Amino acid sequence: MSTSRRKFLLTAPALAVAASVPAFGHAQEKQLVHHVYFWLKNPSSKEDLNKLIEGISTLRPIPTVRQFRLGVPAATTKRDVIDDSYAVSLFTVFDDIKGHDVYQEHPVHLKFIEKYSYLWGKVTVYDSMDI
Amino acid sequence: MSTSRRKFLLTAPALAVAASVPAFGHAQEKQLVHHVYFWLKNPSSKEDLNKLIEGISTLRPIPTVRQFRLGVPAATTKRDVIDDSYAVSLFTVFDDIKGHDVYQEHPVHLKFIEKYSYLWGKVTVYDSMDI
Repeated sequence: MSTSRRKFLLTAPALAVAASVPAFGHAQEKQLVHHVYFWLKNPSSKEDLNKLIEGISTLRPIPTVRQFRLGVPAATTKRDVIDDSYAVSLFTVFDDIKGHDVYQEHPVHLKFIEKYSYLWGKVTVYDSMDI
Repeated sequence: MSTSRRKFLLTAPALAVAASVPAFGHAQEKQLVHHVYFWLKNPSSKEDLNKLIEGISTLRPIPTVRQFRLGVPAATTKRDVIDDSYAVSLFTVFDDIKGHDVYQEHPVHLKFIEKYSYLWGKVTVYDSMDI
């Protein structure tokens, strides 16, 4: 086996893995972060919270979704700047605005709104483009 | 070279890369998402915007930061639920509240506040724990 051939075999698997996994911090690729915060119509209803979480979970498989995180307010130390009044946080990443638009119009997303929107009293969306 | 020896050489680099990159979607590890939105005191000042971005960029190397994204409002279609009035979005991920607390008290973070806080008129923080 020549040196160069051996070198290829050693590095190729690493490159293959690297290509299949999102880059740390996405310093190179600029992506679109779509972060949605939901407030329940009945903030004290644990049942409504669970239903909303169930509903949001259905969005994960939409094909243009590159990252997906579902969260609830964390127990960090309270400060004036912190808004922890929301019920559920939905963090998603898309490659670009086109990917986001496909998600918005996707039947799974429309079905989610149709089926679960009665649960929320307020929604705030922050769309950010990486710089 | 024995077969097992060759196999080790082929897979070890791939494993090393895989271990160093965060898992896609973090379905297994529950992490803390710390998302901060900044509003400038002088929203029309491009100079202040650039200074703030420069300042936020200094936070990236703080050791407990697992993910870091700096963004500005994206050009998605305007909707009532979208808040695009902020100037800069800082998205960070920590392994847990302890990692977040280390970041908050880190000299680099304190220096950032000391040096750049004159630029912002409002800050809103959403801390979410993955579920």
